[in-house]
Amino acid sequence: MRELQERILREGKNLGNGILKVDGFINHQVDPALMDACGKELARRFKDVGATKVLTAEISGIAPAVTTALHLELPVVYARKHKPITMPDQVFLTLSPSHTKGRMVELIVSPEYLGHGERVLIIDDFLATGATILGLVRLAQTAGSTLVGIGALIEKTFEGGRAALSHLGVPIESLAQIVSMEGDQITFAVE
Amino acid sequence: MRELQERILREGKNLGNGILKVDGFINHQVDPALMDACGKELARRFKDVGATKVLTAEISGIAPAVTTALHLELPVVYARKHKPITMPDQVFLTLSPSHTKGRMVELIVSPEYLGHGERVLIIDDFLATGATILGLVRLAQTAGSTLVGIGALIEKTFEGGRAALSHLGVPIESLAQIVSMEGDQITFAVE
Repeated sequence: MRELQERILREGKNLGNGILKVDGFINHQVDPALMDACGKELARRFKDVGATKVLTAEISGIAPAVTTALHLELPVVYARKHKPITMPDQVFLTLSPSHTKGRMVELIVSPEYLGHGERVLIIDDFLATGATILGLVRLAQTAGSTLVGIGALIEKTFEGGRAALSHLGVPIESLAQIVSMEGDQITFAVE
Repeated sequence: MRELQERILREGKNLGNGILKVDGFINHQVDPALMDACGKELARRFKDVGATKVLTAEISGIAPAVTTALHLELPVVYARKHKPITMPDQVFLTLSPSHTKGRMVELIVSPEYLGHGERVLIIDDFLATGATILGLVRLAQTAGSTLVGIGALIEKTFEGGRAALSHLGVPIESLAQIVSMEGDQITFAVE
């Protein structure tokens, strides 16, 4: 998606070690118009998978998941990293390694909002190693839901996430595929 | 706003001690169409305050802040509760008591995205005691920004937040004003 790639080239910063700083429009400051355009494009790509719910992880997944779900006219569930007091005692919980935190984090979903018969589309900001998305997949599977697709704003192809998710047999879409972050460069896949 | 009030009456749960469970459409599962309608209404109410940026706190403020900002055509900044590695060492930080966590949490904003000359509209899911919003106000003031308005989806008038914010001299808007949660009831202000 040209608009997102151009924004990454213009404002994204390669901090080294594969860390891409995009907190001027995705992770801290959010550009709602760009998020809406990305959500519209992800909705277009997944319009035929028969999703009944969009699943993401707090925090950075929320904006793109909400705009995607708005265009698909579906509810969103975002996995929590801490169980709030409004959540029942019995929950679906999995552990997932956090790249930016350097430790395991919990991903928690209430059985009230994810269950048998749901067709789940996972949306997140990044597809990197795939670890967070695999955590969301485990939650969906534990809930008895069917995974129907995986979408991300930005994919770092050199971290292997797509390969780690390929056994799931569902369509995987990303709007900006970065093939290399060697030196201080950001190199996209040729479309 | 009738649509939000009806949804609260139909699906909200009064858990006692002033705790309103609305995680079926705001806090865990999100109804994007409802959030978009709420954002549109908040944008209408604040269209003349000359805001240049919407400020909120992660996590539950993100969805209404993004939809409000989408309709106002403004960027959103969400205060982080943990400093990510992509953020510079020098940040704006304040402590705020968390009602649902029973302890102080940090609210952190990068100087890259909040500064002198900004006119800040604060949007959050709840206006209760006003403590989180006061934390956001302190961040805006420390950054040298001007506060121009405060908006929330749901106000619990009996927790005194509006009075705690009145000295700020800016318009305060909420879309559903709950005046009492005695017993297992949820009573709205008469509009």
